[in-house]
Amino acid sequence: MSRAYNFCAGPATLPEAVLKQAREEMLDWRGSGMSVMEMSHRSDEFVEIAETAERDFRDLAGVSDDYAVLFMQGGASSQFATIPLNLLGEKAGADYVNTGIWSKKAIAEASRYGEVNVVASGADSNFTSIPDQSTWNTRADAAYLHYTPNETIGGVEFDFIPETGDVPLVADFSSSILSRPLDVSRFGLIYAGAQKNIGPSGLVVVVVRKDLLGKARDITPTMMNYQVIADNGSMYNTPATYSWYLAGLVFQWLKTQGGVEGMGQLNERKARKLYDFIDRCDFYANPIEARCRSWMNVPFTLADDALNGAFLKGADERGLLNLKGHRSVGGMRASIYNALPEAGVDALIDYMANFAEERG
Amino acid sequence: MSRAYNFCAGPATLPEAVLKQAREEMLDWRGSGMSVMEMSHRSDEFVEIAETAERDFRDLAGVSDDYAVLFMQGGASSQFATIPLNLLGEKAGADYVNTGIWSKKAIAEASRYGEVNVVASGADSNFTSIPDQSTWNTRADAAYLHYTPNETIGGVEFDFIPETGDVPLVADFSSSILSRPLDVSRFGLIYAGAQKNIGPSGLVVVVVRKDLLGKARDITPTMMNYQVIADNGSMYNTPATYSWYLAGLVFQWLKTQGGVEGMGQLNERKARKLYDFIDRCDFYANPIEARCRSWMNVPFTLADDALNGAFLKGADERGLLNLKGHRSVGGMRASIYNALPEAGVDALIDYMANFAEERG
Repeated sequence: MSRAYNFCAGPATLPEAVLKQAREEMLDWRGSGMSVMEMSHRSDEFVEIAETAERDFRDLAGVSDDYAVLFMQGGASSQFATIPLNLLGEKAGADYVNTGIWSKKAIAEASRYGEVNVVASGADSNFTSIPDQSTWNTRADAAYLHYTPNETIGGVEFDFIPETGDVPLVADFSSSILSRPLDVSRFGLIYAGAQKNIGPSGLVVVVVRKDLLGKARDITPTMMNYQVIADNGSMYNTPATYSWYLAGLVFQWLKTQGGVEGMGQLNERKARKLYDFIDRCDFYANPIEARCRSWMNVPFTLADDALNGAFLKGADERGLLNLKGHRSVGGMRASIYNALPEAGVDALIDYMANFAEERG
Repeated sequence: MSRAYNFCAGPATLPEAVLKQAREEMLDWRGSGMSVMEMSHRSDEFVEIAETAERDFRDLAGVSDDYAVLFMQGGASSQFATIPLNLLGEKAGADYVNTGIWSKKAIAEASRYGEVNVVASGADSNFTSIPDQSTWNTRADAAYLHYTPNETIGGVEFDFIPETGDVPLVADFSSSILSRPLDVSRFGLIYAGAQKNIGPSGLVVVVVRKDLLGKARDITPTMMNYQVIADNGSMYNTPATYSWYLAGLVFQWLKTQGGVEGMGQLNERKARKLYDFIDRCDFYANPIEARCRSWMNVPFTLADDALNGAFLKGADERGLLNLKGHRSVGGMRASIYNALPEAGVDALIDYMANFAEERG
């Protein structure tokens, strides 16, 4: 088929313009005689690519010089260990907010390295809401407080940034990085696996306040030591060069689209359209409290689960791909990241309306 | 320029046929409507890509079902910690052979987790030779013996596989994997960063005998636990999907080139030509003992270091790229991996001969 609308939660759709540029440059990057993936990471060419990507990311996300920006290998799952290994320092433990499956994974891994205090859990609402911060059981001596601003599977998103006083705030922005403006200065560390809003999988971008560096525990593998990675410009070893290059192309594309302000407006519009339709049409339902509905991942159910197969088959035939919900949740999920065009949301709504009319 | 001959040590040149196929499939993999990098790692399409790549690698390298093949994120540097964390078990330490810069890095990282016994060092020969195994100070109670079959920087390569009895043999094949036939059954574990003979950087292939799994220390980050990665088919988290796909394309290309037997013959011929020329021409020199000369990385010096700049400039003009030696060694280095065509070696020798005649 021609290019489909791909609603996959990750790895996810990328801007067509980025893929076209990557295709164009595949065998010969700007007269270098080489593909980017064949270049030494220490070559002038690649260093320019890498530095431009970091600069564009800093511009887009509004990251000051108080922070290091690291392009590390792996994804959020490896950061689940890297964070406590680097940030616990001499503290006994850290605070974590549990708002769903990714929070739980972060908590489980951190518990192996220190005492984790779960300050609040969305379990009371079956993870359909974000617990109000006035109810949180935070500790002033926590090494940091970790939360998951957007739960990719549950489709629940924070509508506020937690207040933590002197306790550094740490957040897994894997599925919402660069999707709208964010005040990075409120955070000690944010991180994001690349495969939703940044680029291909296998790369994770970490933004860490420089005063938090240098506290890694002795047992930390060198390749997980933020200080080492920062001191070496993310080139202590050979980085994931091609993924870094593609991330840079995505950042350049974002700048042509109005940056995070432009994305925020677009994403709000896309999400609003889809939720409004779901709320209007009795055949579909989304369980998340309105103020906490994710702009990135929209789970929904059909009035009759027995129709799920027919719904997915019809969607596939129309080039609306990967709408099946996560196995732990069931139903459907439309991931509508930055690179999923508004026309894709319109096409989805059209299809959903037709399906409901015919089969509902 | 058009495609150059790229002698970079890594990331390194890739087969042109592979890059062309990747270019062709960039926006739409076989009618799927998606790029491979946009596919869910759990989709039927990607699982087929991943399984085919593993099967082709097993065929090429001759890996039996007694071994797990893991496609992990990171590179050899992350394995330097992963190996002791997984294999030391209840043993106090491991044996390491020091034949150069990469050996030393592996030793330094392993020393953070256990007692490292350096059984032999190439330092006596200034790392121009491999110490004869009869001189090694091995221990019967070592958790494993680690060595570096090919030192990418020094250009020294083992001409034998060490005998270690019941002690598992562990080897960093980053720069020589799939370059010639290898009896994998002699090893407990072999690993290779992808960016020389396999694909793009950010991926590391680990082949581990299954009876060595399940001994990871408690402090091991989950993403570094071989058992977890093996149990989940290298998809415990989102793997580096696009790199895995490209590795698969390289494996398919290798099969069309006669596999590792074909590569072994080609690589021996390429290396022999270049070393023969260097030995014949007084203007150039390579310091490595003949039996231990690397087939993959050929360092050489000019009779007058003051001519290095002119040599590199002239090479660049002829599309012979990245011949500058590693900063710790100086001089020149030609990396002639599987994907560097014999015609590239011929062109290099021509240029070297002309340069020596004009400037020598």
